[in-house]
Amino acid sequence: MATIQDVAKKAGLSRTTVSRVINEHPYVTEEKKRLVTQAMQELNYVPNSSARRLRRQQTETIAVYVPRITNPFFSHLVEVMEKEAAKKGYQLILCQTRYKKEQERNFLELLKTKQVDGLILTSIENDWSEFEPYLSFGPIVVCNEYSDSAQVPSVYLNQIEGSYLGTKHLIDQGYTKIGYCTGNHKSSRVSKDRKIGFLQALDEAGIMMKEEWFFYNAYSVQDGFAAFKKLSELDDKPQAVFTGSDEVAAGIAKAAFDAGWKVPEDIAIIGFDNQPLAALMDLTTVEQPIDTIAKQAMNLMVEAIQAKKPLSRKEVILPFQLIKRSST
Amino acid sequence: MATIQDVAKKAGLSRTTVSRVINEHPYVTEEKKRLVTQAMQELNYVPNSSARRLRRQQTETIAVYVPRITNPFFSHLVEVMEKEAAKKGYQLILCQTRYKKEQERNFLELLKTKQVDGLILTSIENDWSEFEPYLSFGPIVVCNEYSDSAQVPSVYLNQIEGSYLGTKHLIDQGYTKIGYCTGNHKSSRVSKDRKIGFLQALDEAGIMMKEEWFFYNAYSVQDGFAAFKKLSELDDKPQAVFTGSDEVAAGIAKAAFDAGWKVPEDIAIIGFDNQPLAALMDLTTVEQPIDTIAKQAMNLMVEAIQAKKPLSRKEVILPFQLIKRSST
Repeated sequence: MATIQDVAKKAGLSRTTVSRVINEHPYVTEEKKRLVTQAMQELNYVPNSSARRLRRQQTETIAVYVPRITNPFFSHLVEVMEKEAAKKGYQLILCQTRYKKEQERNFLELLKTKQVDGLILTSIENDWSEFEPYLSFGPIVVCNEYSDSAQVPSVYLNQIEGSYLGTKHLIDQGYTKIGYCTGNHKSSRVSKDRKIGFLQALDEAGIMMKEEWFFYNAYSVQDGFAAFKKLSELDDKPQAVFTGSDEVAAGIAKAAFDAGWKVPEDIAIIGFDNQPLAALMDLTTVEQPIDTIAKQAMNLMVEAIQAKKPLSRKEVILPFQLIKRSST
Repeated sequence: MATIQDVAKKAGLSRTTVSRVINEHPYVTEEKKRLVTQAMQELNYVPNSSARRLRRQQTETIAVYVPRITNPFFSHLVEVMEKEAAKKGYQLILCQTRYKKEQERNFLELLKTKQVDGLILTSIENDWSEFEPYLSFGPIVVCNEYSDSAQVPSVYLNQIEGSYLGTKHLIDQGYTKIGYCTGNHKSSRVSKDRKIGFLQALDEAGIMMKEEWFFYNAYSVQDGFAAFKKLSELDDKPQAVFTGSDEVAAGIAKAAFDAGWKVPEDIAIIGFDNQPLAALMDLTTVEQPIDTIAKQAMNLMVEAIQAKKPLSRKEVILPFQLIKRSST
């Protein structure tokens, strides 16, 4: 591979002159520019982008945090973000936090050491106070998750409304014994709010909830299998179950089918997201406008990078839609 | 944000001395080192990683090409690659080619301009001759796809064997009229080889194939819907269909179900990959060892970056497994 020295030798000029041409230094004659450019072409020499990035103090790279990319909700978010970023000349670095606090903190170094221009968080495991000190190194945008204490823009959905919508639908179908299956209700604001919306719908209808009908830390198809097992072993079983993910809902539906139960006669199930899976398994679900969330978050991020100004708190709240299918 | 000038001022030393401390220059006194380090800490100053990277000529970043991250086969590959890369101190840049030649070529600039140390290609749209000139800028490893002319390591599966295994299973179940539904059989070596294996199994059993039973450019659930529509309108319909993806197989199964057909009585369907979807929809499928392919490709890449030696052709071929379910 050709070096700057090779170019200097070929052009018959000093390394400093070559460097000046590359860096568009004002005091270089046209003749020297021509000689250097010609030598670079002949040697197939490309200036190292790190040098250019160093001068401009920009990496044109954005880190996106997701818990795991195999969750279709997050792969869909990332697909749209990557398309938007590519249009604007930015690359994405993929950071999988795997629902782990430490893993999430490790990736913050990317911003501190200026390997990325900004961070988009689609999930949050740590307290916001862990992120706060990193804001001096570059913009952070929150997307999907949200935090009351985060002084940055958040593009998210009113999850209270979303779970209220789904739960109200179950109540309207005549179910009075309704189970609840969701993620981490302790650290995730999304999970906390979904629980509020769920309980609100129940409360309005004067419906009681049993502690044994709550199933926590459910994220995957496998978790759905496990939730069905617990549910099926109860003496007093729920007639319907609200879930926070189509994958969990699909796992419950499949386990129920394998156990000889009928859906929705023996158990009604509602998912969340409207992933392709939900259509395939005929699951009623609460649709989130993923394309819109992803695009808005990426636009806010690129604007922040280009404006080089600190971001302030801003909320972009988008609506949900109920998709009715045969599972309820 | 503090600059190197601020550090120099605080430490009461010259900018050059500060720079020497940061760059671990040998001729700096311990006292000066202490003053600079203390000033950096007080000002929360972090040296720009671009400068360090520039000196070391490494970015600790690897670009991974996928057609689209929402395809569960590719999101699974990327999930495992990212985990492996993180363990070794590397980040991944996600490049979605969207099955487009131009998009694929655009991302090659990342290697040329040294924004990444190497490229892993999980799909190939262009002729290998388009990639060849970029090998002088860094290592390229091919994973899942393969090319006869690529003088680089390829970690892949013998797709002739995979489709032979699946087709033979359909023949053993007694089907003699078998359709074939796959991706791009013109540029993709994977698709070409799958077709060879399919035809080989048919040929051995003395079974004839009809041109109208071939369905090309099918990748998604939607493509499965479209394939079923075409298939259902034929006068002479196949009894079974071999597909190159669980998503396509799931689309056909759902469309068949919605049209009142029984699976496998009216149409038997076999998928490819063994995605979670296949288990949920009870689809027989040909399993690919995704974790192993992803880990081996990432290990070869990191070795190549660290050895700083050009890679030579090498093939790592892994086995398939047939997963029998109720769809055949």
